[in-house]
Amino acid sequence: MQAKIPVGILGATGIVGQRFIQLLEQHPWFEVAWLAASERSEGRSYVEAVRWKMKTLLPEHTARMVVSPATPDGAPRVIFAALEAGIAAELEPRFAEAGCAVISNSSALRMQADVPLVIPEVNPDHIKLIECQAWRRKSGGFAVTNPNCSAIGLVLALAPLEQQFGLETVMAVTMQAVSGAGYPGVASLDILGNVIPYIAKEEEKMEEETRKLLGQRNGAGIRPGHFRMSAQCNRVAVEDGHTESVSLKLKKPTRPEEIVSAWQQFRSLPQELKLPSAPERPVIYLSAADRPQPRFDSDTGCGMAASVGRLRPCSVLDWKFTVLSHNTIRGAAGAALLNAELLKAQGYLE
Amino acid sequence: MQAKIPVGILGATGIVGQRFIQLLEQHPWFEVAWLAASERSEGRSYVEAVRWKMKTLLPEHTARMVVSPATPDGAPRVIFAALEAGIAAELEPRFAEAGCAVISNSSALRMQADVPLVIPEVNPDHIKLIECQAWRRKSGGFAVTNPNCSAIGLVLALAPLEQQFGLETVMAVTMQAVSGAGYPGVASLDILGNVIPYIAKEEEKMEEETRKLLGQRNGAGIRPGHFRMSAQCNRVAVEDGHTESVSLKLKKPTRPEEIVSAWQQFRSLPQELKLPSAPERPVIYLSAADRPQPRFDSDTGCGMAASVGRLRPCSVLDWKFTVLSHNTIRGAAGAALLNAELLKAQGYLE
Amino acid sequence: MQAKIPVGILGATGIVGQRFIQLLEQHPWFEVAWLAASERSEGRSYVEAVRWKMKTLLPEHTARMVVSPATPDGAPRVIFAALEAGIAAELEPRFAEAGCAVISNSSALRMQADVPLVIPEVNPDHIKLIECQAWRRKSGGFAVTNPNCSAIGLVLALAPLEQQFGLETVMAVTMQAVSGAGYPGVASLDILGNVIPYIAKEEEKMEEETRKLLGQRNGAGIRPGHFRMSAQCNRVAVEDGHTESVSLKLKKPTRPEEIVSAWQQFRSLPQELKLPSAPERPVIYLSAADRPQPRFDSDTGCGMAASVGRLRPCSVLDWKFTVLSHNTIRGAAGAALLNAELLKAQGYLE
Amino acid sequence: MQAKIPVGILGATGIVGQRFIQLLEQHPWFEVAWLAASERSEGRSYVEAVRWKMKTLLPEHTARMVVSPATPDGAPRVIFAALEAGIAAELEPRFAEAGCAVISNSSALRMQADVPLVIPEVNPDHIKLIECQAWRRKSGGFAVTNPNCSAIGLVLALAPLEQQFGLETVMAVTMQAVSGAGYPGVASLDILGNVIPYIAKEEEKMEEETRKLLGQRNGAGIRPGHFRMSAQCNRVAVEDGHTESVSLKLKKPTRPEEIVSAWQQFRSLPQELKLPSAPERPVIYLSAADRPQPRFDSDTGCGMAASVGRLRPCSVLDWKFTVLSHNTIRGAAGAALLNAELLKAQGYLE
Repeated sequence: MQAKIPVGILGATGIVGQRFIQLLEQHPWFEVAWLAASERSEGRSYVEAVRWKMKTLLPEHTARMVVSPATPDGAPRVIFAALEAGIAAELEPRFAEAGCAVISNSSALRMQADVPLVIPEVNPDHIKLIECQAWRRKSGGFAVTNPNCSAIGLVLALAPLEQQFGLETVMAVTMQAVSGAGYPGVASLDILGNVIPYIAKEEEKMEEETRKLLGQRNGAGIRPGHFRMSAQCNRVAVEDGHTESVSLKLKKPTRPEEIVSAWQQFRSLPQELKLPSAPERPVIYLSAADRPQPRFDSDTGCGMAASVGRLRPCSVLDWKFTVLSHNTIRGAAGAALLNAELLKAQGYLE
Repeated sequence: MQAKIPVGILGATGIVGQRFIQLLEQHPWFEVAWLAASERSEGRSYVEAVRWKMKTLLPEHTARMVVSPATPDGAPRVIFAALEAGIAAELEPRFAEAGCAVISNSSALRMQADVPLVIPEVNPDHIKLIECQAWRRKSGGFAVTNPNCSAIGLVLALAPLEQQFGLETVMAVTMQAVSGAGYPGVASLDILGNVIPYIAKEEEKMEEETRKLLGQRNGAGIRPGHFRMSAQCNRVAVEDGHTESVSLKLKKPTRPEEIVSAWQQFRSLPQELKLPSAPERPVIYLSAADRPQPRFDSDTGCGMAASVGRLRPCSVLDWKFTVLSHNTIRGAAGAALLNAELLKAQGYLE
Repeated sequence: MQAKIPVGILGATGIVGQRFIQLLEQHPWFEVAWLAASERSEGRSYVEAVRWKMKTLLPEHTARMVVSPATPDGAPRVIFAALEAGIAAELEPRFAEAGCAVISNSSALRMQADVPLVIPEVNPDHIKLIECQAWRRKSGGFAVTNPNCSAIGLVLALAPLEQQFGLETVMAVTMQAVSGAGYPGVASLDILGNVIPYIAKEEEKMEEETRKLLGQRNGAGIRPGHFRMSAQCNRVAVEDGHTESVSLKLKKPTRPEEIVSAWQQFRSLPQELKLPSAPERPVIYLSAADRPQPRFDSDTGCGMAASVGRLRPCSVLDWKFTVLSHNTIRGAAGAALLNAELLKAQGYLE
Repeated sequence: MQAKIPVGILGATGIVGQRFIQLLEQHPWFEVAWLAASERSEGRSYVEAVRWKMKTLLPEHTARMVVSPATPDGAPRVIFAALEAGIAAELEPRFAEAGCAVISNSSALRMQADVPLVIPEVNPDHIKLIECQAWRRKSGGFAVTNPNCSAIGLVLALAPLEQQFGLETVMAVTMQAVSGAGYPGVASLDILGNVIPYIAKEEEKMEEETRKLLGQRNGAGIRPGHFRMSAQCNRVAVEDGHTESVSLKLKKPTRPEEIVSAWQQFRSLPQELKLPSAPERPVIYLSAADRPQPRFDSDTGCGMAASVGRLRPCSVLDWKFTVLSHNTIRGAAGAALLNAELLKAQGYLE
């Protein structure tokens, strides 16, 4: 039995940081060895620094760990980063520069040309962009990112359609859970019995990330996917799980059974490699007329599968459907963890 | 001072029936003179028959009224109908046949060729279809309908754009309040912390009603509007107010100020005629980045105005925006009441 | 390896019936062999008859089972009953009469003198009342009940205090989850953003059941516990988990550490017998200032433990605290299942 | 027509500050002339400084006012204070010292011996404590406070019972709305589908304020009411309106009709003086089995009346009932405003 790889968590006290701790608790390959958060938390034990919001108990071992300063000194090589974009823009390059493998959930570097934005089932080959990073050449460090929580479920549903039929146009309207805004995040006075039709920068992220994820590697960068994409983002009074109403136009005429079959049959590299966090089936089609629903379907595949339903013709584009995925598991910590597993499987973490 | 016109309410115990009673309580032209509901309620006093769900008190006078059987005998000539579609299909023609002016909120007759589907600000001239109805010729009775609660806010926002710039394509995704499903309607176990991506027949209604409303009178029928329309309907944990994310393509290139101005300047016949329930401004544009929101904006214009916000370019069609309207006032009882006021102003209720 | 005992479920399509199916799916001793529901469902496959509201998938094997009529013919001997009180009052005696072991979650027979009302950790010896039942003598059949969902968490918290310090007075105010009302149960229009300060017959049940559960066997009946008890019951917008604010007066002066220790040390027969559904610790004291909370603590001990917190002095009685338990697991299906396991362990199911 | 009295608002940007602005908009006696908030807001126009959360529009005139520093220089004499306790403890004495009439909603000075804690219907004579304040003698300034939002509805319901029958014991369990915690206040992740059984310092405030309010003036202080009082406080997912389950013991044996009559007949000085914000009836008894409910009854009497229901015998004390009042109107801004009106009527604001 091999020793586990020690990993660190940057931004360990936030909602996504807490998810990392929860998901890593029993992980076969990785173990939490280092936690960092804002200055306010430095030097305190994690249990004192955190307002634990997961439904499982805070692991004893982690509870007693002392929160380190957010600098590369003393940090392990493998770093999961769960930072706000502004701070990430400053800290992530510093860790990559220092030789760390920065596996980030932040938006800071996602659209940088030489930084891979990866969903292992969708574009695992983008990970090779690492070799183009200056950090890599200097110190061996690098940065890999996963997409925004609103983009990832959509792209899982789009990927098999893009592969088999080609995408021409995609329009998505989201109804996003409050946990996507972190903690304390959305005030209860703002969301009880309400819908907020605005999430800052979310629509821009969805549009550009979706096209990068479904794009082609092209030398030291990515040529974005050749389809048009429009997003509208809303916040609703749901705890976990982003629901999206999608319309799309495909390049080929297609029958609905073919689309459902493309989703149901979809398997990819993480499934072949049997990565520990890979869901058996990345996309699950539900035939009930009123599914997926966040309260019932967010946890499908341990929160790592996208649930799709309601495929029907669209009288403007070709097809309409609903997609749902868990925003802090598949949409954040679980996404980064699967990226880490892919990196490990491909030798990048040695 | 003129005597008020006595009116009856079919389906008086449901949520929309209750709204009729609430809105008619102080009405300058109409007074509630007759209430009918299902057999179960017949012969009981209204206060015993109803589970009153309005936030204002049940008017004393109405509380004591006895619920009549749902037949035209003894009913006043002007009837507000708030029935489920199946029952409406049977009862509404019976009342029209018997000489009543049936002002209906139900979907039963909306798409019938010679039945006007009317929003007084949008297509008041459709009301002349009444003259083509067989009932009218026989007994003087007729039926007029208002649209589905999910169509009406959208069409208020679309009408000035259709008039000034021409619509080519409309795509709408709704997030609809639970009161739209009546009482008891949506079970709390189904909607707490949840989104339900399905409302039976709602998408079909939105698509066809929107095109009829924005269509042209053509002999004894309506030629539907010349644009493509697609709808997706979701239920959310909101009490009152349907929120919709809309994308559209116009026939003319247009600047955003022109669109906002078209909304802000929009006035129509009900405003000219100063109909009692007409909002001063049927469409109100909110400039805040995160509005409209159902909890704050549903009651705008006493629940009779549509609130619009977030106009911005769409990277697939031309423009995106959010529209909100109160689903049981402007989207149901208030809509029918405004229709009745228009009919009165035009001499149809004499 | 021994064959599993076949069991039937009466009222299999309701929320509690669904919980039985979920909890029995992997049960080491029992297997679902027979399902009955209302006439409407008879003869249909279970998957067609049910509106499945559990978050886990409906087991394949159960999905295909055909729903039987609700009569003892062809039913297995062990019957879990999840019926509404009115129907239970008629059907449960009929099954007991026919020789069945009726393990009921309904209130119909709970307060009948010779019917045991049992929480295995609290009053396992009450089960011997079975021997006083006429059914038992005639056909071998009998009936055993578990308490109301609002009483069970409270009584788990009270039992160790009654044993060690003696109860003099108990006052409880509940904030109960909507799943306690079944499906469709509470209308969303009634509970979104609201509190309903009334649940029919709930306060009476809590008061009398608590005293029977903590009473002493006395010949062919139970002498109720010697303490005064008052309950007030409210419904809140929570999915699962009843929260209760409790004040009590004990017979002996006691220090808070002693009370906490009584809870923490509490173990009973189900723990000794290692019954499959018995939680390792029936009562768990949480030291955080703001716990227990339904969203975080309802699932503690697989939904079978009561969580207690906030022990502090009361300026009227002696002590105040909050108790929480899962209302459809420990408060319904799980309670009945634990009763069945106790019956099996004591030879009553042979 | 007399000129209105100019008033200032300390803490004008918070939820209670916003309520003051809303309630003062059309006030016959007072007009908002000065707004102060934290340093961050100073010098900005109010519309820029505030996140307006009221459902009515921000009055134009107030929107344009510039936020002043929170010092007495340039402030009007009459000051409504809506500050957090820590800041209030520092600022309120400073304003009173400078000659201002400080009408405070904060807890800072409530329990200070010479500061009146007043509900005008309950203990208007306590206002004379003003004369014992050192500030009054020095500069003419003084401070008057209103109770905590959880105490005020309860005390309105208790006052007529104390007067007619005498209170011996009171136990109350609250279910409090999120608006009581201000903005942003309670995080949505903490309260969606949840109950939080803890509000810092709330139980202590309820217990001691209730006894001071129902106490007797005794020289330069108040002798607290002679009854025992215990409170337990919970937060629930309700926007506005604190609901409380109350049990009490009276000094005299009483029939339920007498209690209901005591509530229904209750009128007091504000009603006699016809103070503008005084509700016609301070306590309203609802006979429906399931009322009061926050969503339907919080706004009763423009949010200034307490609604009571469910009077029934208690098997431990004498009686149980439910009381509800609006926490940011009668429980905060409206309470202070009514205090101001009483002060004005009694000549203290000249």
